[in-house]
Amino acid sequence: MNSSPVHDWTVAFLGLGLISGSLAGALKAAGWRGQILGWGPRAPSLEKGRALGLIDQFSLDLDEVLSDADMVVIGAPPIATAQLLPEVIGKAVYYGNPVVTDMASVKGFIVDSAKYDYTGFVPGHPIAGSEHSGVEAARADLFKGREVILTPLPHSDEKALVAVEKMWTSVGARIAHMSVADHDAALAASSHLPHMMAYALTAMLDDHELGPMAHGGGALRDMTRIAASDPVMWRDIALTNQEALLNAMDALADEHGRLRSLIEAGDGEAMEQFFLRCQQLRRDHDRILNPLTHIDEAQV
Amino acid sequence: MNSSPVHDWTVAFLGLGLISGSLAGALKAAGWRGQILGWGPRAPSLEKGRALGLIDQFSLDLDEVLSDADMVVIGAPPIATAQLLPEVIGKAVYYGNPVVTDMASVKGFIVDSAKYDYTGFVPGHPIAGSEHSGVEAARADLFKGREVILTPLPHSDEKALVAVEKMWTSVGARIAHMSVADHDAALAASSHLPHMMAYALTAMLDDHELGPMAHGGGALRDMTRIAASDPVMWRDIALTNQEALLNAMDALADEHGRLRSLIEAGDGEAMEQFFLRCQQLRRDHDRILNPLTHIDEAQV
Repeated sequence: MNSSPVHDWTVAFLGLGLISGSLAGALKAAGWRGQILGWGPRAPSLEKGRALGLIDQFSLDLDEVLSDADMVVIGAPPIATAQLLPEVIGKAVYYGNPVVTDMASVKGFIVDSAKYDYTGFVPGHPIAGSEHSGVEAARADLFKGREVILTPLPHSDEKALVAVEKMWTSVGARIAHMSVADHDAALAASSHLPHMMAYALTAMLDDHELGPMAHGGGALRDMTRIAASDPVMWRDIALTNQEALLNAMDALADEHGRLRSLIEAGDGEAMEQFFLRCQQLRRDHDRILNPLTHIDEAQV
Repeated sequence: MNSSPVHDWTVAFLGLGLISGSLAGALKAAGWRGQILGWGPRAPSLEKGRALGLIDQFSLDLDEVLSDADMVVIGAPPIATAQLLPEVIGKAVYYGNPVVTDMASVKGFIVDSAKYDYTGFVPGHPIAGSEHSGVEAARADLFKGREVILTPLPHSDEKALVAVEKMWTSVGARIAHMSVADHDAALAASSHLPHMMAYALTAMLDDHELGPMAHGGGALRDMTRIAASDPVMWRDIALTNQEALLNAMDALADEHGRLRSLIEAGDGEAMEQFFLRCQQLRRDHDRILNPLTHIDEAQV
């Protein structure tokens, strides 16, 4: 591992899309001194990333990029990440032991796919995204005030962990540590389930004879926004975090059933208490869920 | 009914909150020439509305306000609207037959509460709102590009309908006509159900041992935003549009079950098709759901 300051390191992004492009742009915006490289199976998104000034150079040759990199960031959907990871860490010892991290929304499946206990590997997941996809949707402020969950493994090197943390804090993110299992259960509830809810609602509205989607306001805008997310990414997540996602879906169905019973019984008092509790809980978390709004307010 | 141009009419708001305050402010911003009055059971929100320049004058005496009004706009949650409506239209003949409209999210319950077949009554519902409440959250651009659904009754006067339409189009809203039953079924699916989903998700996250609300990003922000909505308003809606809401909740539960089966079966191909269909449907409706974004783009 390179012993110079992390800001001087060469960072290689494997795959350049919304999230990896945003991190590359955020590093540039934060004054990262090392080179920013890109690799991918096809040139167009890499060319776009270079034209947008997100990366300095790119190559379609994985070995070429790995040989230059001090830090390798895999930016791909879960299944592609799981395919790439054993190849990258298998070669890492030949290429000066770069730090390797990923950004996939699922951690257990990725960690299980690694094959080798490489000490330089630190799994990660930034809690940030958008219903848009592709490097052209990259935003340098995407991680400001957002949480990045790292799930260091028993064999993860402390220096590698610190390097990954420094990269993320340099772009304004907050660091949290969780176990792989806790990450997958928490994210199933806070992210994977909400996406399935947006999909189910959108499909249900499409089936409705009155075309209610055409009569929607701000509530529907927000409750269906993420139904426009990348279908391949979300297929991958549902396939690779299956058990935790099914648990979260069942817990939601139970809650939905409880609320349905109150409505069917016309129990206004219990409903009002239910809604009040939710209002309070949502308000208590607004600062976490809307970091940019609160950063803007603090700057006024 | 006053035969002068509608823009010269005196408009009286009964109840001054987020929606009615926004409409009052929007009328002012659009150069409405008539007086804007406020009535309510208590002075504080009316005083705020006058201080914010949304209304010209207010009174706590309903008869005083009705005697001056050419147009009466009831701005209250469903149950309060249903209580106020028969009193207002019962007195209307004594006060020069003002046009009367309301803005409640539920129409069947309101229409059933009217008691008298008053020709000047035109039920309405602007598809706009916010998780915030109270007159201090009023926004003059709240209705720009938004739909207002009117459900004229068999006995509704054509001139009254046109007057209500002119008021709404003057603040940038689009007009749609629906039957009372179609409105309640469509809105149960497009608005009332999404609110119940946000409540159920928020409650489920609160019960989860890992506290996933604290690890949320943009998806969770949007999928729970409306759980901070006014508990009394949403209790009223769930009580007064019960049947249509239960139907919508059941249709959603069916769709949720279908998606759960695909996930349990690990059927990646069917999931991808499901998500692709939703992505396309959501993109097709973005212009309706995000009118301000598209207005802004058009102005650039």
